[in-house]
Amino acid sequence: LSSLEELFLNVKPVKILVLLNDPSSEKYASAISKKVDCTYSHTVRILQRMENEGLITSNKKGRKKEISLTEKGEKLAKPLAETLHQMNF
Amino acid sequence: LSSLEELFLNVKPVKILVLLNDPSSEKYASAISKKVDCTYSHTVRILQRMENEGLITSNKKGRKKEISLTEKGEKLAKPLAETLHQMNF
Repeated sequence: LSSLEELFLNVKPVKILVLLNDPSSEKYASAISKKVDCTYSHTVRILQRMENEGLITSNKKGRKKEISLTEKGEKLAKPLAETLHQMNF
Repeated sequence: LSSLEELFLNVKPVKILVLLNDPSSEKYASAISKKVDCTYSHTVRILQRMENEGLITSNKKGRKKEISLTEKGEKLAKPLAETLHQMNF
């Protein structure tokens, strides 16, 4: 975690949103929590807030819920990904 | 303060950086603290962290210090401004 990230961002929610916009990443809470190094319960809470804000939707796939970004979520993920990129350049 | 802003951002530092990239805004701590509705001492503390990170420089002008963004600061201000724009669209 860089000090620049901590100064400006709530890093976990930002990384989760950016990850959800990465075509190569698995779109399940369990996989996301591992990738962003966040507990499963905290990840689920952040995803719930994102769903309340209309940034993601979820679809039952057997016992799992597959998450996808809405158009609003995609539009926000882009400048946040660029922000992370600039911070780690 | 929108709930979207609070979910992803440390709003005061982000607004200060974006404001410093706005050509029409006054570049002094006192003016900035009023514009972002932040105490003067908190504003000065955030500006100090930004200077430590190489995002801003300051120049004595009489009794005041005029602040300007470095190239690194400008590069970070852009995606953060776009993030705020998407959140308030």
